[in-house]
Amino acid sequence: MNAPTTAPFHVAQRDVPQALIQALQQRFGNNCSTALVIREQHGRDESAFTTVPPPAAVVFAEKTQDVADAVALAAQYQVPVIPFGVGSSLEGHLLAVQGGISIDVSRMNRILSINADDLTVTVQPGVTRKQLNEEIKSTGLFFPIDPGADASIGGMSATRASGTNAVRYGTMRENVLALEVVTASGEVIRTGTRAKKSSAGYDLTRLMVGSEGTLGVITEITLKLYPLPEAVSAAICSFPSIEAAVRTTIAIIQMGVPIARVELIDSNTVRMVNAYAKLGLTESPMLLMEFHGSPAGVKEQAETVQDIATEFGGQSFEWATTPEERTRLWTARHNAYFAAIQSKPGCRAISTDTCVPISRLADCLLDSVAEADATGLPYFLVGHVGDGNFHFGYLIDPNNSTEFATAEMLNHQLVARALSLGGTCTGEHGMGLHKMGFLLDEAGAGAVQMMRTIKQALDPHNIMNPGKIFSL
Amino acid sequence: MNAPTTAPFHVAQRDVPQALIQALQQRFGNNCSTALVIREQHGRDESAFTTVPPPAAVVFAEKTQDVADAVALAAQYQVPVIPFGVGSSLEGHLLAVQGGISIDVSRMNRILSINADDLTVTVQPGVTRKQLNEEIKSTGLFFPIDPGADASIGGMSATRASGTNAVRYGTMRENVLALEVVTASGEVIRTGTRAKKSSAGYDLTRLMVGSEGTLGVITEITLKLYPLPEAVSAAICSFPSIEAAVRTTIAIIQMGVPIARVELIDSNTVRMVNAYAKLGLTESPMLLMEFHGSPAGVKEQAETVQDIATEFGGQSFEWATTPEERTRLWTARHNAYFAAIQSKPGCRAISTDTCVPISRLADCLLDSVAEADATGLPYFLVGHVGDGNFHFGYLIDPNNSTEFATAEMLNHQLVARALSLGGTCTGEHGMGLHKMGFLLDEAGAGAVQMMRTIKQALDPHNIMNPGKIFSL
Repeated sequence: MNAPTTAPFHVAQRDVPQALIQALQQRFGNNCSTALVIREQHGRDESAFTTVPPPAAVVFAEKTQDVADAVALAAQYQVPVIPFGVGSSLEGHLLAVQGGISIDVSRMNRILSINADDLTVTVQPGVTRKQLNEEIKSTGLFFPIDPGADASIGGMSATRASGTNAVRYGTMRENVLALEVVTASGEVIRTGTRAKKSSAGYDLTRLMVGSEGTLGVITEITLKLYPLPEAVSAAICSFPSIEAAVRTTIAIIQMGVPIARVELIDSNTVRMVNAYAKLGLTESPMLLMEFHGSPAGVKEQAETVQDIATEFGGQSFEWATTPEERTRLWTARHNAYFAAIQSKPGCRAISTDTCVPISRLADCLLDSVAEADATGLPYFLVGHVGDGNFHFGYLIDPNNSTEFATAEMLNHQLVARALSLGGTCTGEHGMGLHKMGFLLDEAGAGAVQMMRTIKQALDPHNIMNPGKIFSL
Repeated sequence: MNAPTTAPFHVAQRDVPQALIQALQQRFGNNCSTALVIREQHGRDESAFTTVPPPAAVVFAEKTQDVADAVALAAQYQVPVIPFGVGSSLEGHLLAVQGGISIDVSRMNRILSINADDLTVTVQPGVTRKQLNEEIKSTGLFFPIDPGADASIGGMSATRASGTNAVRYGTMRENVLALEVVTASGEVIRTGTRAKKSSAGYDLTRLMVGSEGTLGVITEITLKLYPLPEAVSAAICSFPSIEAAVRTTIAIIQMGVPIARVELIDSNTVRMVNAYAKLGLTESPMLLMEFHGSPAGVKEQAETVQDIATEFGGQSFEWATTPEERTRLWTARHNAYFAAIQSKPGCRAISTDTCVPISRLADCLLDSVAEADATGLPYFLVGHVGDGNFHFGYLIDPNNSTEFATAEMLNHQLVARALSLGGTCTGEHGMGLHKMGFLLDEAGAGAVQMMRTIKQALDPHNIMNPGKIFSL
């Protein structure tokens, strides 16, 4: 375990009575573990924060009733519960800052029903996105949301995740149709239906999507699916500068090209990826793009984009039309994080996640690049730029408090800039612990108070993943 | 005013103290009216319910602060407030079933900012959809949501409206980016940002969209816009049966054709529209379709659809490619309601609004047609069938309680069927008063209780459009 980093959040663990642990062990037998190694594994995520003591116990749920019973028992003792999928969250969502128990739903990993004719699927929360796409392959449909990590659908719902395909297909906000949720009292409720749209009462589905486990534990998710596109082509294009790549993206979006993916990778990151994955990509800023549609439609989109890119100095369009070539390309993109981590042994990444209106993307990004360069701190830079969303990953030595402070300063400056441009501090990672400090600046006191009021009404004893999103 | 119809809701008007009326008159002068004709105009909508006494006063708000002050005064006296846009709601949303005051926001009708480069616009709630599209015409962008009526954007947000273009562009749920809202205490808050996506805390925007004035008054709306398609073409296709038209639609959706509009009109309704608008449309079930895209893309979509339609016996594809021809077509569609009303002098329409998963559309629709035909009650039938959403309008004499009862029975049977098929009782009209009875069946006791808990937490004195969505 690494030495402490300065945590920008409050740790105040509440007591977990032995009687609760005994009750859980009685109810769950071997599916309730208090082994340190298991608890430690459930008390961290992919964030840079590693110093919070782990949960007191881990319950491995195998069905909705397990979750309901675990929450009901925790509620009886007013002990926090933290849902756990695969542990790929990036903002400290899983850390037991107020103690409590972890409910691991990774064994709830069944596809419950595929309704290919309706383009919907209902899954348990522990199903991962790759598993889902593998299991529905024969239907000719796919689930497009791709945050990079092979995250669980439950976790993706809880953080309102998105990723590379969101520019065309939307985020979890747009793609979750209905949920089953265990509430703070251990009751099982359903939100939404399989109908594509509805005006029936409050949108509890959207309230739960992105609530990060603070309002309930998601135990079932109904998702929209899409027909696999008849034709897919992908391309890399190198640019003389980040600005040229970004201006190309802005023009693509403003022209309404229905591009499926348009990802920025800066030259730093290309270098790291080349080293990590033994690739020979040109080490300049690049856009990775993907086009979905009919053969003619894809060709048309690609031509339009090539014209725009050329205007901004884009060079060496490289096309990847076979599935293997495309996989190689997207693997390179998805490995950016690990490639970066490996480029500085022992480091951890402090991730940023700002998202701004597309017209402000160049301003926001270029000023932040200049700021980061001025500090000398190594970083990677990737972005779902078609949505105005990008990530710096500042690579810090977790034992070096100066580097930590520099990274935090850069993140603060970046967020302040994004907010001043009409953007958000987090496009897709969620607030967790790390972004909590920004919510008041972004949403304003009135909106945060409304969120708190809802939280207090639905979870009066503050047991659902407490200490996340906002302080209570 | 028509004679009473049996209202399926409870009317229990709360006292409006004279002191409040005086305070409002002092604050708003001539912009606060107690004239009966004004109050009556604000105490009804396009629903069949006409017997509830009007609000005690109408405040004409000209800016957000007016709304905030009116709500704050009403809150002080714990008197209900009902927001009013243009009065085109269909489910009794505007009726003062618990008394109170109406806040008319129709004078708040300015476009506040157009951000063409970001494909967003911010408007006041009284702007209507036609006004919006007129005012942004020069930007090359448009706002696609089209519920038929020239509704206000505030009202469309509050009811989670959608309409003919939703099959491609989504509903208000997907197209509202951010809001300004006056809460139950008269505070002004903001939800969301202009960023295309965000994971920053609870999705208050989506909670407010569709809350029908029961959680706050919407005073500003930021919307997504879309580039006007390079090419548009529209077509009518006649079918030998409703089933053939519906099966064609199902196949179009399942194949992933990005059709912009696909509307069903049954032969009854074609006849009414022909009589009303002096058209010579073939009097058989028809689909009205529209395709948006590049010239090649539109051609490709149209060819695919024509192939599918032919397979199901579709005949006489008539194309409308000029804007004038298209306007004529869509005017016919939008006039269906008025054409139907005129077909039976003195009648009112009881509208249904079920929406089901697309694969169940034929089952749901055909059984309901058979049921309606068996009663002999005249009706019109139109549908946004690409979304699985359709509307019967049962034409009743409001003085004839037997007809009213028959229409209600048909609606109940239809909703029960839609729910059993995984659908919703309301795809786009909202609950209002008329659908209230169905919420428990659709959402279940747990979810309704969660909605109530939220309502009670955010509006403890139950003054925001009380008596709508669910009983409290």
